[in-house]
Amino acid sequence: MPRSARLIIDNSEHSADLLYATRFRAGDPFVFLEIRGRKHLLVTDLEVDRARTEADVDAVHRLSLLEKQFRGRRPAKRAPAPTLADLVDVFLRAQGVRELIVPGSMGVEHADALRKKGYAVRSQPEPFFPERLVKTPDEIACIERTQRATEESVAAALAVLRQAKVRGGLLVDRQGPITSERLRAFVERELLERGCRVSHTIIAGGRQAADPHCDGSGPLRPHQAIILDVFPRDATTGYWADMTRTVVKGKAPPFLKRMYRAVEDAQTAALAAVRDGVDGRSVHQAVQDVFREAGFPTRRRRGHMEGFFHGTGHGVGLEIHETPRFNARPATIRAGMVMTVEPGLYYPAWGGVRLEDLVVVTRTGHRNLTRFPKQLEL
Amino acid sequence: MPRSARLIIDNSEHSADLLYATRFRAGDPFVFLEIRGRKHLLVTDLEVDRARTEADVDAVHRLSLLEKQFRGRRPAKRAPAPTLADLVDVFLRAQGVRELIVPGSMGVEHADALRKKGYAVRSQPEPFFPERLVKTPDEIACIERTQRATEESVAAALAVLRQAKVRGGLLVDRQGPITSERLRAFVERELLERGCRVSHTIIAGGRQAADPHCDGSGPLRPHQAIILDVFPRDATTGYWADMTRTVVKGKAPPFLKRMYRAVEDAQTAALAAVRDGVDGRSVHQAVQDVFREAGFPTRRRRGHMEGFFHGTGHGVGLEIHETPRFNARPATIRAGMVMTVEPGLYYPAWGGVRLEDLVVVTRTGHRNLTRFPKQLEL
Repeated sequence: MPRSARLIIDNSEHSADLLYATRFRAGDPFVFLEIRGRKHLLVTDLEVDRARTEADVDAVHRLSLLEKQFRGRRPAKRAPAPTLADLVDVFLRAQGVRELIVPGSMGVEHADALRKKGYAVRSQPEPFFPERLVKTPDEIACIERTQRATEESVAAALAVLRQAKVRGGLLVDRQGPITSERLRAFVERELLERGCRVSHTIIAGGRQAADPHCDGSGPLRPHQAIILDVFPRDATTGYWADMTRTVVKGKAPPFLKRMYRAVEDAQTAALAAVRDGVDGRSVHQAVQDVFREAGFPTRRRRGHMEGFFHGTGHGVGLEIHETPRFNARPATIRAGMVMTVEPGLYYPAWGGVRLEDLVVVTRTGHRNLTRFPKQLEL
Repeated sequence: MPRSARLIIDNSEHSADLLYATRFRAGDPFVFLEIRGRKHLLVTDLEVDRARTEADVDAVHRLSLLEKQFRGRRPAKRAPAPTLADLVDVFLRAQGVRELIVPGSMGVEHADALRKKGYAVRSQPEPFFPERLVKTPDEIACIERTQRATEESVAAALAVLRQAKVRGGLLVDRQGPITSERLRAFVERELLERGCRVSHTIIAGGRQAADPHCDGSGPLRPHQAIILDVFPRDATTGYWADMTRTVVKGKAPPFLKRMYRAVEDAQTAALAAVRDGVDGRSVHQAVQDVFREAGFPTRRRRGHMEGFFHGTGHGVGLEIHETPRFNARPATIRAGMVMTVEPGLYYPAWGGVRLEDLVVVTRTGHRNLTRFPKQLEL
């Protein structure tokens, strides 16, 4: 039987599997190989010193030496510039490996180039490292640190809204009207000061809140829903957190209050369903049941979706959206998984309400990593 | 002959080609198809409204409708959850397409799944859209905006260093010792306030500056090189900029001054070589020639690289590192390309010096987008 190896050619900003396997952060592509339990990295001369210090692997090899071997087998003139696949081939020949297992997210060009050289390349669907799904206590501590930064930053944003005045139908402070853009910049500055990176932050008010993926723009107004969905990544550890709160500055209209109560109830029902061994579908179903019983239909109307039309939750770790999910597809949930629970309701006439907590699944239920209170009216 | 189409299944945070083709920003995967010059998007119900407003395509289709068609062809019970490849297949059957051209960076799982269904899938090496290499005036304006934000933020950081006092061999201000971490947070806050995102920022002093990819940590000291390499991305347009400056607070030792002069001369020589039609190798060679003549050897010594051991430059646009490159490999440089020119010298005993400008290639030379002065001693 031919020897097989696990292979990842990628950069560890894109591939969380690569970061997980090596703990080495690099924005340019490098090579990871796991052969008979030994972890190898192939890196450029530019990265070799840092890789030897930082990477959690058994051996770090220089691509430039493999390139010398590659060129040594060819006439000196007209030697083509080797690709990463060429250099992986040089390395693997010496190891007798002919079978490669790669993540499904790895670039097809690398897989095809290795196939042309005679390797059997099989892509493995998520998760590439099944052990990534269940978080260790250290990983949970990392996620909690990011979660604390998230909560402190949202607290600071809500303080801005609390202190705001209402003038001419707008929320204003000493700097003028409070806009989604300004409040977002404020939240992100707070996150930055807590060592976090942000890709984007949702601060969407009024009708904009009815589109769950609208980032939000323009002035924020009183007596309307404002959704704050904040999901930063710790710059050092690479672990994410995720939290959503919905608030109203002033008085919430009765329909919005009913929506908020239904979302709270749905989240309570979903959280009650979370435990080791549960099927993710039943957590999602719990949310749908509450909304149906409370009289909040999900449908397409006048060309827009309304009601509840996203999943109830997703794994969080080195990626913001990880396997498994709480949605309509089967998924076995295990103790130690870190998951969001985030039901929402969206009606263009009323805006949106979403509440999102982050929990660790336990044998008998869950431990909520989110300590932030839920309060509609500020 | 079978009809062919261009296909991208990815998210537009990862795939700059997808962002380029659609101008639609989404962190979750969606599908782009270009069939006979018409651009199609396949998106979830969650993204459909935003896609119809924001995406620069001819038609936006709902994956949920394709899923209904997919399930309609199967017995209702035990219907498997369709993958994106299944839904692309449903869509393409109606179009008579059997041949697909995909970017090399696209996940191998999608390519292999479509191959299993009988499609001929061919990955195209970078660039997927050759027109991406040459920037339009609008794109150059976007890059220049990011560059201005970069320069203002570096100016603010140098002001902090200028005002610093030297105490006990450290640089200090009212908040205490100035560290790489604190100065980095300061620069990144300035960038954030100018609408930019940062992935990371290099502020490396002393021996750390001798490793070109070391981010830098700990207290900064007088009379040593400090490298500031700042490369943010505009949050709205998605275009990057890139600039590096090397400074010394206090008096630079003579060897560091000689390094700095050699790097300045190398950059001048490289910039003089840039013009439409040139081979990228000759720009890189110009740098190597200056360093050799100035007596700065590149070699491996005591297990570390020293001298000049990275490329001279790279394209900048919707990715921070784009094709083409100024390095040892052939590359045709064309007017309208936006490239960095960033020679550097690194010696563990002395630290490092790198100077990086961002230029647009023109018919007869280049236009330097960088206005920031170069000055070693603050």
